[in-house]
Amino acid sequence: MPLNKIDLNSDVGESFGNYKLGLDEEVIPLISSANIACGFHAGDPTVMRHTIAIAKKNGVAIGAHPGFPDLIGFGRRNLDASLEEIRDYVTYQIGALQAFAAAAGMTLQHVKPHGALYNMAVRDPAIWDAVAEAIAAVNARLILYVLAGMDREHLKAIGAKHGLRIAYEFFGDRAYNPDGSLVSRKEPGAVIHDGDIVAEKIVKMVKEGRVVCIDGTEIDMTADTICVHGDNPAALSLVQKIRATLQASGVDISAPETFL
Amino acid sequence: MPLNKIDLNSDVGESFGNYKLGLDEEVIPLISSANIACGFHAGDPTVMRHTIAIAKKNGVAIGAHPGFPDLIGFGRRNLDASLEEIRDYVTYQIGALQAFAAAAGMTLQHVKPHGALYNMAVRDPAIWDAVAEAIAAVNARLILYVLAGMDREHLKAIGAKHGLRIAYEFFGDRAYNPDGSLVSRKEPGAVIHDGDIVAEKIVKMVKEGRVVCIDGTEIDMTADTICVHGDNPAALSLVQKIRATLQASGVDISAPETFL
Amino acid sequence: MPLNKIDLNSDVGESFGNYKLGLDEEVIPLISSANIACGFHAGDPTVMRHTIAIAKKNGVAIGAHPGFPDLIGFGRRNLDASLEEIRDYVTYQIGALQAFAAAAGMTLQHVKPHGALYNMAVRDPAIWDAVAEAIAAVNARLILYVLAGMDREHLKAIGAKHGLRIAYEFFGDRAYNPDGSLVSRKEPGAVIHDGDIVAEKIVKMVKEGRVVCIDGTEIDMTADTICVHGDNPAALSLVQKIRATLQASGVDISAPETFL
Amino acid sequence: MPLNKIDLNSDVGESFGNYKLGLDEEVIPLISSANIACGFHAGDPTVMRHTIAIAKKNGVAIGAHPGFPDLIGFGRRNLDASLEEIRDYVTYQIGALQAFAAAAGMTLQHVKPHGALYNMAVRDPAIWDAVAEAIAAVNARLILYVLAGMDREHLKAIGAKHGLRIAYEFFGDRAYNPDGSLVSRKEPGAVIHDGDIVAEKIVKMVKEGRVVCIDGTEIDMTADTICVHGDNPAALSLVQKIRATLQASGVDISAPETFL
Repeated sequence: MPLNKIDLNSDVGESFGNYKLGLDEEVIPLISSANIACGFHAGDPTVMRHTIAIAKKNGVAIGAHPGFPDLIGFGRRNLDASLEEIRDYVTYQIGALQAFAAAAGMTLQHVKPHGALYNMAVRDPAIWDAVAEAIAAVNARLILYVLAGMDREHLKAIGAKHGLRIAYEFFGDRAYNPDGSLVSRKEPGAVIHDGDIVAEKIVKMVKEGRVVCIDGTEIDMTADTICVHGDNPAALSLVQKIRATLQASGVDISAPETFL
Repeated sequence: MPLNKIDLNSDVGESFGNYKLGLDEEVIPLISSANIACGFHAGDPTVMRHTIAIAKKNGVAIGAHPGFPDLIGFGRRNLDASLEEIRDYVTYQIGALQAFAAAAGMTLQHVKPHGALYNMAVRDPAIWDAVAEAIAAVNARLILYVLAGMDREHLKAIGAKHGLRIAYEFFGDRAYNPDGSLVSRKEPGAVIHDGDIVAEKIVKMVKEGRVVCIDGTEIDMTADTICVHGDNPAALSLVQKIRATLQASGVDISAPETFL
Repeated sequence: MPLNKIDLNSDVGESFGNYKLGLDEEVIPLISSANIACGFHAGDPTVMRHTIAIAKKNGVAIGAHPGFPDLIGFGRRNLDASLEEIRDYVTYQIGALQAFAAAAGMTLQHVKPHGALYNMAVRDPAIWDAVAEAIAAVNARLILYVLAGMDREHLKAIGAKHGLRIAYEFFGDRAYNPDGSLVSRKEPGAVIHDGDIVAEKIVKMVKEGRVVCIDGTEIDMTADTICVHGDNPAALSLVQKIRATLQASGVDISAPETFL
Repeated sequence: MPLNKIDLNSDVGESFGNYKLGLDEEVIPLISSANIACGFHAGDPTVMRHTIAIAKKNGVAIGAHPGFPDLIGFGRRNLDASLEEIRDYVTYQIGALQAFAAAAGMTLQHVKPHGALYNMAVRDPAIWDAVAEAIAAVNARLILYVLAGMDREHLKAIGAKHGLRIAYEFFGDRAYNPDGSLVSRKEPGAVIHDGDIVAEKIVKMVKEGRVVCIDGTEIDMTADTICVHGDNPAALSLVQKIRATLQASGVDISAPETFL
């Protein structure tokens, strides 16, 4: 039976130096978990400290959002890094963020790989394993966010192997294939732009544990956390609609550290 | 009365990617504290992990060696960063190294600012204060390495203010002014190249708490740690000579966490 | 006698990767010379190409806007680089931009150092000399933009020494000291926010060759180019007002390659 | 009939800041074409200037060696950059090096992509096309270095399309497959460590236009340039042996601008 609890997570702290990106001040109060960039693909030390302060003020859980060292590509380009390099990059970035958390009297809740690192892990679970190994070596209380819908047993086994809790993530604004994978962004219909449909999909997934796929079939889909965005005012409105719809359905929006 | 204990510290972990710098494998067994670069002016995640492994194998204490984000200048060029930026850079770099230490089952002992950051702090104690504030907020058990010879009361007060232990650092291969400051590298005689003289100066400082200045006068000089180098075979030989001379004088070479 | 011609220049091409900065599409049609960031403090290869395309479409002259390799600080922090390093940084950045200009069938008109590099040169003319030397070695047809109001004979001599044309730059939105220098931004009244006053100052400088200083005294001030901004809609409105006021006064807005 | 002329090229200028890599002073006098790193995967502005000076002193032709913006990975990791990004990266890096060449009174002869960019182009000729397009737009007199042995007609067509001369490159220290491709480094025998065999293979290729493949079969193989290395004293000795063997066979070692 579903828990009637769900986490809303968003990628924040993506500004860099003189460059501002995202409406962090506005979106953080609307979510339960903040994925904070750690200086490789976005973010810088000052932005990291500032983002944690916003999360703290709003009682929002914080996590590391490690990415590839590719600022110019915003961490969105596949990079043929070795598993060892991936572990080292994850270790480094978690540590950097942990120091700002400690300085603010907070602790990290989770780790969600960013961009190409996340997408490469979805296609090659050896990368999830490497990420999990790095996390566990630094702090086994951290929760690893992974894509819901595929390889669940395998991902569960990776969590068990490293003693980590796993949070499965659902994308309300993305179409799913019948095998539980995301429809590639290159396909028509991959991204859902109608906020009503997005909110409805999310509530269905949370309440029924089901999602309607791109071909009309319906499959099982359970998740602990939903990815939302704060890039622009329209994205913020969508987050507000998602919150309102979930709350109207009696769903509790909570960080996964409270229910995993 | 002198403690008959002294720390030998060296800057290590300064390789980067395909670039190798320093004889870390050789010098780390000869020192008691390793200052590890953290990826801003030198070092990268893989190098950091590897350097910690060498230190662990040799039972050597480890510390963060944070610098300015100036890889091309190796952190040796003054950068007009604000105190806030300095605090954030120090926090970030300590955190990154702490994660690798945790993954190796170690804890950090100390923090020694690198290059221009160190030199700017020597000239402007507000920077020592900023560095100390950043360290204390992350982990007040860390020892801050500062230059011995000047402003001792002020530096002691900074340590007390932030609840940090201070380790005073002596440079055996540098000439001192009668006011306890280092002779500028632009002056003739600033750097001492004769290993016998270096070793003799170090033993005198440790045993008598005195140093002969560049003008021949002798002043009080006590310190907890001595900076040595592992850049090349000649530097390694000098460290061996320093060790031998200290041990022949009955001085115990120990990391400052054992005596501060 | 004044020429009744003036250049309007603006810093553009300052976006980077996923980060957008400045209203380049809007401001470039309003100016006669575009200072394009070259990838060290801002800008990236794709942004450089795109910015040149906008300038070409609008018939606007282009120049390199080289800065320090300090993306996180946006090139605004003094960096203790050697004159040799400065020359090399300027050479590199001019070359990179020249290639995009060549690919677009354009040639560069000018070089204006950015941020801290410009400000450091204003305080230390040896830096102007180094910049001029680097420019001349690459392409002696490039015009060097320098601050009007101080050291004019010295700057003229630097231009003559390296065979470069010099364009003197005026800041309509900055207060001047009676010695012709800019009032420090740390002083009250240093920046003029009233667009009417800015436009009036510019017209007076162009038509009369005079500026009223912060203390009410009036001094001689001639310049070839005026720095304007395209950061936000208010800045754009000010550029439009400046254009309208100049044109109403019979002043021709032209790139300096047409009159120097 | 073979020309009895061959170019020896080597990757140089790969130092960065405080990091020294390669024996450039020693290897440059032994080659006819120097591939100079341009600051993305290796090299920095000061190193670029210095490397050109060494080439000039030795009368060696110079070319750009552009790579991916991946200093930490030395440009050796595949990066999923778009063709547009690749063109822009190549344009930028050629331009930067051209400026140093101009300042030294030299002109560039060629462009050889580095590391992962070269290897990705070998597998996907659309990348060769993008590189060629970028080169031609900047300076159509530049020669493009490509891998000999495969897709020769296709590569020739790319050169013709963009009006560029193509130089085909042979690797004397690498085993070839019967289809003319390089044996993957992951296979046993891929790299030939015996200098005598390397020199013999090179002479056979130059004099007979043939190479013995890893399976013992012999195939046609003609090339204009041979890649040699200056990483260490053993590599230098091999270059000397190759030179001596070629000269003893009556082969003229010349830069391709003299015979293409």
